[in-house]
Amino acid sequence: MGDLEIRPAVAGDVPAVVAMLADDPLGAQRESPDDLSPYYAALERLSGDPNQRLVVAVREGRVIGTLQLTIVPGLSRRGAVRSIIEAVRVHADERGSGLGTRLVEWAVDTSRREGCRLVQLTSDATRTDAHRFYERLGFTASHVGFKLQL
Amino acid sequence: MGDLEIRPAVAGDVPAVVAMLADDPLGAQRESPDDLSPYYAALERLSGDPNQRLVVAVREGRVIGTLQLTIVPGLSRRGAVRSIIEAVRVHADERGSGLGTRLVEWAVDTSRREGCRLVQLTSDATRTDAHRFYERLGFTASHVGFKLQL
Repeated sequence: MGDLEIRPAVAGDVPAVVAMLADDPLGAQRESPDDLSPYYAALERLSGDPNQRLVVAVREGRVIGTLQLTIVPGLSRRGAVRSIIEAVRVHADERGSGLGTRLVEWAVDTSRREGCRLVQLTSDATRTDAHRFYERLGFTASHVGFKLQL
Repeated sequence: MGDLEIRPAVAGDVPAVVAMLADDPLGAQRESPDDLSPYYAALERLSGDPNQRLVVAVREGRVIGTLQLTIVPGLSRRGAVRSIIEAVRVHADERGSGLGTRLVEWAVDTSRREGCRLVQLTSDATRTDAHRFYERLGFTASHVGFKLQL
């Protein structure tokens, strides 16, 4: 296994990232890998925002994982900055290899460097494997996550 | 009861906002209303970020509520923009008056105007009244919220 690089996503990574987003029981119904234009537009918006880090994990030139980290300043907890992890995906061929851990560790390390005092994320209630994964990494399932579709 | 205004928070609102953050079973342990300097610094950072909306609800010149809305672009769900609600607080004198509903409706309307396809938030598992409140407003408790303190 070659070296793993975690770096900002660029336009050339979009097809691989979208394929990973779609290769998932929930994502399959939500994504449109045949029409990438909304994804390129979203990447452009993310790339211009210093509080957004969309990264890919690359090994031997192949994109095998992705994660989005958002830095969120705020007043509560004495003006604490927090970060939010979204859209963690590992390529089907790489599951169980520790890559998810590497990605989340990257997010936690980056959050620490950015002065965050809290890292948070929500995980669909049906993803019980993911819940055990986050608990192993030290996260506490202390909150209920609410969503409203518009 | 006079008219309610929901507007961006300014420095003069900080003492009232922090007092509300601290007047809460969880917030009492986390906030420092006697030292406002970290809050002023946080407000300055928020004010410079177009994806952040820290607002206050004001009636007859008095700050009686607050909420933070963060706009989060992303690749998943076909490049959907989502928003995140944090730090919803209603002054103790105003609870049960429908002000929380007005604040969350403001956040949902603003999210819709900003093109968001999803509004999300997490609520501490102990805040069961808040959970019923969000469900009444149409939110679904579909996720588990994980936190990691740094």
